[in-house]
Amino acid sequence: MAQPTVEDVAREANVSRQTVSNVINTPSIVKPATRDRVQLAIARLGYRPNLSARRLRQRKSSTIGVRLDPIRNGISGAVLDGFVHALTEQADARSMRVLLFTAASPQDEIAQIRSLHEGADVDAFVLTATFHGDPRTAWLIENDVPFVTFGRPWGIDDMDDPKHLWVDIDGREGVKDATVRLIDNGAKRVGWVGWPRPSGTGDDRRRGWEEAMRDRLGASDAELAALSVESYDGVSEATETVVDMLRSGDLPDALVCASDTLALGALIAASSAGLTDLPIIGFDNTPVADAVGLSSVDQVLDRVAVATLELLLGSDGNSIVPRGTDAGPSHRLIRPALVLRTPNHLPLYGTTTERTAPAVRDHHRKETS
Amino acid sequence: MAQPTVEDVAREANVSRQTVSNVINTPSIVKPATRDRVQLAIARLGYRPNLSARRLRQRKSSTIGVRLDPIRNGISGAVLDGFVHALTEQADARSMRVLLFTAASPQDEIAQIRSLHEGADVDAFVLTATFHGDPRTAWLIENDVPFVTFGRPWGIDDMDDPKHLWVDIDGREGVKDATVRLIDNGAKRVGWVGWPRPSGTGDDRRRGWEEAMRDRLGASDAELAALSVESYDGVSEATETVVDMLRSGDLPDALVCASDTLALGALIAASSAGLTDLPIIGFDNTPVADAVGLSSVDQVLDRVAVATLELLLGSDGNSIVPRGTDAGPSHRLIRPALVLRTPNHLPLYGTTTERTAPAVRDHHRKETS
Repeated sequence: MAQPTVEDVAREANVSRQTVSNVINTPSIVKPATRDRVQLAIARLGYRPNLSARRLRQRKSSTIGVRLDPIRNGISGAVLDGFVHALTEQADARSMRVLLFTAASPQDEIAQIRSLHEGADVDAFVLTATFHGDPRTAWLIENDVPFVTFGRPWGIDDMDDPKHLWVDIDGREGVKDATVRLIDNGAKRVGWVGWPRPSGTGDDRRRGWEEAMRDRLGASDAELAALSVESYDGVSEATETVVDMLRSGDLPDALVCASDTLALGALIAASSAGLTDLPIIGFDNTPVADAVGLSSVDQVLDRVAVATLELLLGSDGNSIVPRGTDAGPSHRLIRPALVLRTPNHLPLYGTTTERTAPAVRDHHRKETS
Repeated sequence: MAQPTVEDVAREANVSRQTVSNVINTPSIVKPATRDRVQLAIARLGYRPNLSARRLRQRKSSTIGVRLDPIRNGISGAVLDGFVHALTEQADARSMRVLLFTAASPQDEIAQIRSLHEGADVDAFVLTATFHGDPRTAWLIENDVPFVTFGRPWGIDDMDDPKHLWVDIDGREGVKDATVRLIDNGAKRVGWVGWPRPSGTGDDRRRGWEEAMRDRLGASDAELAALSVESYDGVSEATETVVDMLRSGDLPDALVCASDTLALGALIAASSAGLTDLPIIGFDNTPVADAVGLSSVDQVLDRVAVATLELLLGSDGNSIVPRGTDAGPSHRLIRPALVLRTPNHLPLYGTTTERTAPAVRDHHRKETS
């Protein structure tokens, strides 16, 4: 006879599977007579509770808490969602689970984290959307709650804090790779469409564009200033901003953008200005970029998820423990991948009056520099 | 003095907050001397463990398991992600949490569910992507594990099974509303772009188009056949299919599509054929639809999440219990909302050679029929 299962025990004791589970896990909530019957059946069959499930439950390192915003946020929301998918998969491979919660503010998130951690529902947290002076990470460090942030601490003094474990995408290198690629293809005046400054993430990405332009083309401060614009992260805002840029006379011959949202606005602006061949590269490689045939910088979320768990689990690879200062590097900066697409949607790029089948190409090269 | 906190206890006992939590929740893993010191501090301060956190932990109804696929699935993946956002928010409002796991197949999902349920990590499950003859729901019913599916059981005999709780979008009504709207606006030949049959979800949506065409325009079987095409759910496949449709001569004067992916393909095909004014309505109201200005049928995921939890929690509203046959309706069919957009991206609809600012309109009417 094979190893008996909980179903066998339930049948033998004439109870539900849930009751057997209760006798094993929370015996106090089961009537004594029923409990005795189940325990007798367990002994008679030689049943051993599912070891991996029990290990999972008893281990202090089984559950990771992640905040998910109530509203899915437009085009860019795909990044956090993709990260949650990748984190769930990588956690599963390590017998860990991802628990979701929502929070209305950083302070509310701290309250939620406190409650989840005190209740022993969650053993560690993965935080996203970090910012300079983030009260959440300060609280987590102060309270010895294990955590990793997807996103670096943006202060000068805390980037190497061994207590603040973080994983981030090297946005600067990603944008630099994109800009260099455009220059290698012949561009002489690559423009930058970024977010209003200061912005930790946005300024970091902008530096990649600046460095490529200075290193490869010897661009001056004045040239850089003339070739860069700022827009809030909305399609219509970016469209208006880039329309103004294209009207100003200092025409760029390619554009790199801090997000796919900005890139979509740039694409619309360029197309409406008749610049249907203007190369444009976005950032985040969202489904929208794929849908409209925009090149983009991919955050390689699988690698981010693996690095997050490696930092969280420490050197022994299977338990979440508060780290000492000798536990190796406390962060991982990951180089993103440039995804190049040939514009596959004629209407966005060409005239729309020909009655021909569009040259649809769904294949694209994916490169990791 | 305010109610003492776990921090007060930790300070008083000179231990970490984690140690206090361990003494409260898993005293067996704490050294006896430390345990005594913490318990003394708890008694001295009159500390009471966070009641709601303890209630949450002890309650059998605190955690809902949801499977998340490892790979985020293109344009349509936004629907499941949006549902997870909404479910997390609505669960939070009821002091419940969402736990994510992955599975490679229905059989693997059953194994995961079994392990999570036996380990008492998860008290109930919300399943998505249901299909006829689904082994997962059969297993859940057989094993008395509480669950609700987002998606109806697609068999004739199990739609009203009181043991199978389900919530679904009334895709037929949603597509019917969309088609009627196009007819009211003057369309006489509304075409349908659907998935290959048979498809539970797809055939249901198609019926809405059929009903509207028969009821409002007296369309015959032959007319319906001439106006409908089938494509796999990819942008390039849909583009090719609709290009063929538009070449066949029986030109539709509007299109309704089973998904936004199909609708984007239809939009590209129509634009490339010069039919820049062809009204097109998709399904799912994804960020891609918003980005390119496509009208679409919205799955009202907040309402789906609320209905899911109402079914799961039963009439008393705060505990997950296996249902009897007298517990009221076992399903909720929710009418989706039609989101109408005016094409806001000139390049997709108009010629792209004018050097003018695009008429950007980000506002759209959102209607619930």
